[in-house]
Amino acid sequence: MSSRKAVVLSSGGIDSTTALAIAKAEGYEIYSLTFSYGQRHVAELDAARRVADFFKVDKHLVVALDLRPIGGSALTDRIGVPKGRSVDDMVRDIPATYVPARNTIFLSYALAWAEVLLAGDIFIGVNAVDYSGYPDCRPEFIAAYERLANLATKAAVEGKLAMHIRTPLIAMKKAEIIKKGIELGVDYSLTHSCYDPSPGGRACGLCDSCILRRKGFTEAAIPDPTLYGGIPR
Amino acid sequence: MSSRKAVVLSSGGIDSTTALAIAKAEGYEIYSLTFSYGQRHVAELDAARRVADFFKVDKHLVVALDLRPIGGSALTDRIGVPKGRSVDDMVRDIPATYVPARNTIFLSYALAWAEVLLAGDIFIGVNAVDYSGYPDCRPEFIAAYERLANLATKAAVEGKLAMHIRTPLIAMKKAEIIKKGIELGVDYSLTHSCYDPSPGGRACGLCDSCILRRKGFTEAAIPDPTLYGGIPR
Repeated sequence: MSSRKAVVLSSGGIDSTTALAIAKAEGYEIYSLTFSYGQRHVAELDAARRVADFFKVDKHLVVALDLRPIGGSALTDRIGVPKGRSVDDMVRDIPATYVPARNTIFLSYALAWAEVLLAGDIFIGVNAVDYSGYPDCRPEFIAAYERLANLATKAAVEGKLAMHIRTPLIAMKKAEIIKKGIELGVDYSLTHSCYDPSPGGRACGLCDSCILRRKGFTEAAIPDPTLYGGIPR
Repeated sequence: MSSRKAVVLSSGGIDSTTALAIAKAEGYEIYSLTFSYGQRHVAELDAARRVADFFKVDKHLVVALDLRPIGGSALTDRIGVPKGRSVDDMVRDIPATYVPARNTIFLSYALAWAEVLLAGDIFIGVNAVDYSGYPDCRPEFIAAYERLANLATKAAVEGKLAMHIRTPLIAMKKAEIIKKGIELGVDYSLTHSCYDPSPGGRACGLCDSCILRRKGFTEAAIPDPTLYGGIPR
């Protein structure tokens, strides 16, 4: 195995955890990056730490940034998290849980860290099939970001680093992602997806993220290890 | 005058202050955005506030983010600030004051705020003539960012907003920037440029930023209002 370095954006959810497992399986040294951005579902920070421990990453960095003064999202602002939407609804309308420019901001920090580490690969678990319709999960966004990344840094301009934005899950259905992760030894009970968990960290079962997660496990015919708080399954 | 909105990246220095004055003169409502990012020259935060007051901006937002854990720069890390370099040196070598992906990160926050405000213009005072050779000040970087911005947000994808990254100073020499600012009523004594000021906020006179500033005032034949701490002029 090579000892190339990869920065992996890790939110503690199914997708980023599977992307991390894929990077690990490809032999990369793993530098996982998690953001504490004023999100109401801080349970995901604990999940990201559990995942980092589980995969014995080379370094796990939690960057604190506050997106609340900027606002505009149900995840950081006083706007209700939509519940009970169908997957068709999700694809039709970008929901209130959309956080303005979130992946652009997250990738920018990943780019900064990648430059310091001289890591040529940034893994992001975006997915444009079973997803919430966010614009910054689409292949055209990722391609534009990769192009930008190769113009933005000193390391790239000096020819020391070619940056690749790696999206191994982009064309996969949620069920395929889960099967892939199971194959790579992921323990999904460590992960967290819910946007609106109970104070004890139990998933609501009704937000977009819970619905996509449950659908994924059902379609993969794999038992869902998630604890849903008071929601019949 | 129209009442279009612009987000203006404001560092409290000559370039961003002049960019702000240009946006104001074009009739925009001004939303100025400043970052507290662990920089050693926090005096620039006070300067940005003075500039916001002077121009009576519609809102001035200071976003706290910590780039120190990422490191890699003399401005945020324990690396010395280079002193006494000529302008030719600056163009030849990207210096230790380069902050990995800084403008990429700053523009990403500006993009998020612009989306929430429905502001179609982001002003950034980058300059590719009298500058420190940073890759993220070049026209090709800005063009790639504008392209990305129009793919990244819900507002852009839904056709509610066409994003423009405005760089009115990109082809100007420092002396031209200063003359333009004076013409628009900028009081440059409010601004701060030095990377390595004294604890009292006096400019060192020897870092790249001081050298470019002094050269600009000299070439513009305008008295430099800067207080240089103990450095003979």
